[in-house]
Amino acid sequence: MPQILTFLGQSRSSCAIASVAFARQLAQQGARVLWMTQDSGPLPAALWGQSLSTEAQTMGANVWALQFQAAQLLEKSWDVVKGIEAQYLRNPLLKQVFGQELVLLPGMEDALTLDAIRGLYDSQTYDYLIFDGVSGKASLRMWGLPEQMDWYIRRFQKVLAESELAQALSPFIQPIAGAVLNISGSQESINQPVQQARSFLEAGRMVVQSGQRLLSFLVTTADPADVEMARYLWGSSQQIGMTVGGAIAYHSQPDPQAFAPLPLHAFPTLGDGNWQPLMAAVPSLDVAVQNAPAPVVVNETEKQVKLFLPGFTKTDIDLTQYGPEVTITAGDQRRNLFLPGSLKNRSVQGAKFQEDYLILSF
Amino acid sequence: MPQILTFLGQSRSSCAIASVAFARQLAQQGARVLWMTQDSGPLPAALWGQSLSTEAQTMGANVWALQFQAAQLLEKSWDVVKGIEAQYLRNPLLKQVFGQELVLLPGMEDALTLDAIRGLYDSQTYDYLIFDGVSGKASLRMWGLPEQMDWYIRRFQKVLAESELAQALSPFIQPIAGAVLNISGSQESINQPVQQARSFLEAGRMVVQSGQRLLSFLVTTADPADVEMARYLWGSSQQIGMTVGGAIAYHSQPDPQAFAPLPLHAFPTLGDGNWQPLMAAVPSLDVAVQNAPAPVVVNETEKQVKLFLPGFTKTDIDLTQYGPEVTITAGDQRRNLFLPGSLKNRSVQGAKFQEDYLILSF
Repeated sequence: MPQILTFLGQSRSSCAIASVAFARQLAQQGARVLWMTQDSGPLPAALWGQSLSTEAQTMGANVWALQFQAAQLLEKSWDVVKGIEAQYLRNPLLKQVFGQELVLLPGMEDALTLDAIRGLYDSQTYDYLIFDGVSGKASLRMWGLPEQMDWYIRRFQKVLAESELAQALSPFIQPIAGAVLNISGSQESINQPVQQARSFLEAGRMVVQSGQRLLSFLVTTADPADVEMARYLWGSSQQIGMTVGGAIAYHSQPDPQAFAPLPLHAFPTLGDGNWQPLMAAVPSLDVAVQNAPAPVVVNETEKQVKLFLPGFTKTDIDLTQYGPEVTITAGDQRRNLFLPGSLKNRSVQGAKFQEDYLILSF
Repeated sequence: MPQILTFLGQSRSSCAIASVAFARQLAQQGARVLWMTQDSGPLPAALWGQSLSTEAQTMGANVWALQFQAAQLLEKSWDVVKGIEAQYLRNPLLKQVFGQELVLLPGMEDALTLDAIRGLYDSQTYDYLIFDGVSGKASLRMWGLPEQMDWYIRRFQKVLAESELAQALSPFIQPIAGAVLNISGSQESINQPVQQARSFLEAGRMVVQSGQRLLSFLVTTADPADVEMARYLWGSSQQIGMTVGGAIAYHSQPDPQAFAPLPLHAFPTLGDGNWQPLMAAVPSLDVAVQNAPAPVVVNETEKQVKLFLPGFTKTDIDLTQYGPEVTITAGDQRRNLFLPGSLKNRSVQGAKFQEDYLILSF
């Protein structure tokens, strides 16, 4: 299976430069590499020395690049949506609306990009997929989508199933299904697509939460605000269970302690399109994955869950249990812990924050 | 009514610095200013010299600041959603789900932020609301939300109303409404909330598309990629009908022709927290609004629509008419032209791109 790499930092150009250096180095080592960017502006063409398109184009031996265009992704996905509609509805109505006229709402772009990456990942055409996003915070929301969406489904499915509303609606389900649906309307036939969606999201979550499948690097410059932001994004990324394999200091030498226990790799400045010095600084990915701290460690025997949350202090972290799951809010990311059966639906007995770890006892 | 200011550029810190300089200068002139940021990282506190919270806090005479936290905005909005549900449903089910456990999906943050700004705007507590977003592209999606959302409603409402699906469902509407709704289920009572939503979005669109209500500035640095990106965001912003009042060159002197006919204002580097030289460089907002090119000029007599699209070439712009409206795609922004009655539902007879203007004849 391919490995996806992503870069988190405040400086847009430093993140893009680091990602291109990785792409060039891995391609030089013989791997097939696809560099993908969400940046529809002029930066990607400047870094590659040629314009990019929405389809993968060769940028040299073993390396391809493409520029996602949300409007175009939306057109493609619309055909898929129409196909699903036609599967379930007797009289599809969406055929009257054309993909070419659909406009973009906030969030659509990230969902469409993630789906496009999923397609490229499943195609197994490349050994590495290198993703260049436009903002670290937005990228984390994107990678968190499978886990978060699954939470909405499991939570609301339960609430709806047990509700008086569902009881009041139940006499109408069969006759309506008979009138408009291609499927029977039985509980089973309605549950099936929901289960399909959940398996699909589960597959996405497994990729995001495995360092061998998705590995991220922090990027910083000499600016102290960039160092702080990289640390903040580090902690935030742990909230979606993402593995961070190292920190990259572009054209700078920050205090390595700021990112301990991660290795800090110094990347020299890109000058006159000479990528060799940067490529030479690209670290081994195998070593990065092996040494990366795990975002979550579950110990079922000791009924303990340890969450790695670097870059935060105790006061930045909020722990609540309003719903059926334990909710952790930190770095403007919120997570409901999806726990194994033995720890599910239990109350937290104790919590402490110690050396960058939040330790929960059940 | 207050005026909202927003800043578009690639360099995150330069945009934030420019926005703070505007806030400080306008406050010094005696206006009540609220500076609002979507940046939940450490940069805002560094620029203001004190930590920010989710509630407006004073930063000096006449100036307040706050840091939006998406998770907290979601909790507040959830109570509103529950209120609406209780208005329409006999047996509300959402009361079983707590705002404190809701997680964030892509797009939610922008929608919630826009709604929070709307509340602050309507409160009329401030003369200026200065918005600091984390990415230019994401900010444009946010400001475009009212127009784009309205398009989805008007397009799909029409398709649904004329569909066989609606006919097939119509016998069920009255009995279901009787079983679960607090309202009658007549066409009128169902249309009413849709009309309310559309008026609400229309009010938002009027604010976004009036320079006196929302004014933006481009921000660039000496980096040629930043100049290019500012030009790109300029063209993209015209696609949502936003007025751009000028360009700001932070710590740099780019070719003023790059932004003609906009005035280019040189902002000196921020050093040792001394804001005075930057504040002195803040231009007059009245002059900026007066001289700003209009994004769209509609001439009903000549049956002509002129769209200002700077920073693009003819090949960057795509013009189609699949649906009932004219669709323009440029800068990864797509717009369906909402035209006055006399030009509505007509085909484009001719189109040319001349001196940064796309001129359509109907």
